[in-house]
Amino acid sequence: MRNILLTMMYDGSCFHGWQVQQNAVSVQEVFQQGFSRIFGNADIKGCSRTDAGVHANMYCISFHTDHRIPVERIPSAINHYLPASMAVLSAEEVADDFHARYSCKGKEYIYKIWNDDIRNPFLEKYALHYWYPLQTEVMNEAAVHLIGYHDFTSFCTLDNREKGDFRRTVRQLTVSKQDKLVTVSIEADGFLYNMVRIIVGTLLYVTQGKIQPDEIPMILEQKRRTAAGPTAPPHGLYLNRVFY
Amino acid sequence: MRNILLTMMYDGSCFHGWQVQQNAVSVQEVFQQGFSRIFGNADIKGCSRTDAGVHANMYCISFHTDHRIPVERIPSAINHYLPASMAVLSAEEVADDFHARYSCKGKEYIYKIWNDDIRNPFLEKYALHYWYPLQTEVMNEAAVHLIGYHDFTSFCTLDNREKGDFRRTVRQLTVSKQDKLVTVSIEADGFLYNMVRIIVGTLLYVTQGKIQPDEIPMILEQKRRTAAGPTAPPHGLYLNRVFY
Repeated sequence: MRNILLTMMYDGSCFHGWQVQQNAVSVQEVFQQGFSRIFGNADIKGCSRTDAGVHANMYCISFHTDHRIPVERIPSAINHYLPASMAVLSAEEVADDFHARYSCKGKEYIYKIWNDDIRNPFLEKYALHYWYPLQTEVMNEAAVHLIGYHDFTSFCTLDNREKGDFRRTVRQLTVSKQDKLVTVSIEADGFLYNMVRIIVGTLLYVTQGKIQPDEIPMILEQKRRTAAGPTAPPHGLYLNRVFY
Repeated sequence: MRNILLTMMYDGSCFHGWQVQQNAVSVQEVFQQGFSRIFGNADIKGCSRTDAGVHANMYCISFHTDHRIPVERIPSAINHYLPASMAVLSAEEVADDFHARYSCKGKEYIYKIWNDDIRNPFLEKYALHYWYPLQTEVMNEAAVHLIGYHDFTSFCTLDNREKGDFRRTVRQLTVSKQDKLVTVSIEADGFLYNMVRIIVGTLLYVTQGKIQPDEIPMILEQKRRTAAGPTAPPHGLYLNRVFY
């Protein structure tokens, strides 16, 4: 059997997250419908769950198949059966034990913020609209304290999916600004539930002066969700890169 | 009475063009509903008509009013009553005889093309998806022949709105490429109905080899719509700047 790795992209504003669920259209469900036209009932493994409204510039899927279609023809073959809001970008054959989720060595998310007193009609579903002028220097001062190997319990929404180890290594975390668009980029070996959105919400509290940059180590130490800032809304968030 | 000039922005994918029409929601209709909450039944003059699906990064409106609201407060006051798909960007007082349409000295449109074999889910309504690799050098070679004062009858859809003089001055026309996004920019003293979309359709024919760059002068001379290329679809088109 061949093991295939797909990279894809989707506009999350059209879906209720990646995972199949009752009473809501998910990316996985719609993808699987199109995918099955070529590959039947092959079991697909997604690299992660994403919440409703969260986008993906790069999302990875792996699956085993006996189908002999040449890899380079797979993207257009599947795309033919997918809605315009998603697209397979590439396909490659990988080792038999490769798994889109378990083989993942890290991911990068970006969070986009439209920072102006006037909204941008083209970004309503694609960036958080934030009036208050953002001070990226101060946000970066706070961000530095989150880089490294830490227990991120304070930056995680507790639900039944998060058990055991809350320690993760944040490899990069930067806040940059181009014109009125602020982008928070974060790379880590793994992410807890809502971790990026809580980090962004906390950095927004920092720029508002509600949290001082040097208070971040204390927030980490407390291991209490309420110590950090609020959870930023989903529509500014993009899964941007997946590392294997 | 004060005469006010507004600049605004809208996502045209939500509307059937600027102008009020029966059986379809237009930008003007929705704008007027919100606008009237502040300025009542003041008569608004738009800088131009735009087709269904066409976007505006800058659209101008003028109107007379006795309302005493300070100009700097007008954008947020109106935006409060507009849907997320449109936004007033600025407001200023202008001379009494200023008219958003008749005082206009020129406009710039841009046309966006996503040039890749795989579609971009985020640009489905915001750029033409075009598979065939575009040769921007050849397109620019053809474009040069359109710059200047010409009769653009061949680049105009004839309907009852176009009468009389079909001569316009194209001041700038360039095709540029950044990664997979090709942008056609065109500035003229005025535009005929569908002129930009027919120019884009013709430049696409040029890159396909169906029209040679040096055939453009002949196409202009023929003054016949069928001499030029097809009309490119509306969703890649943006009114980008209005000059007074």
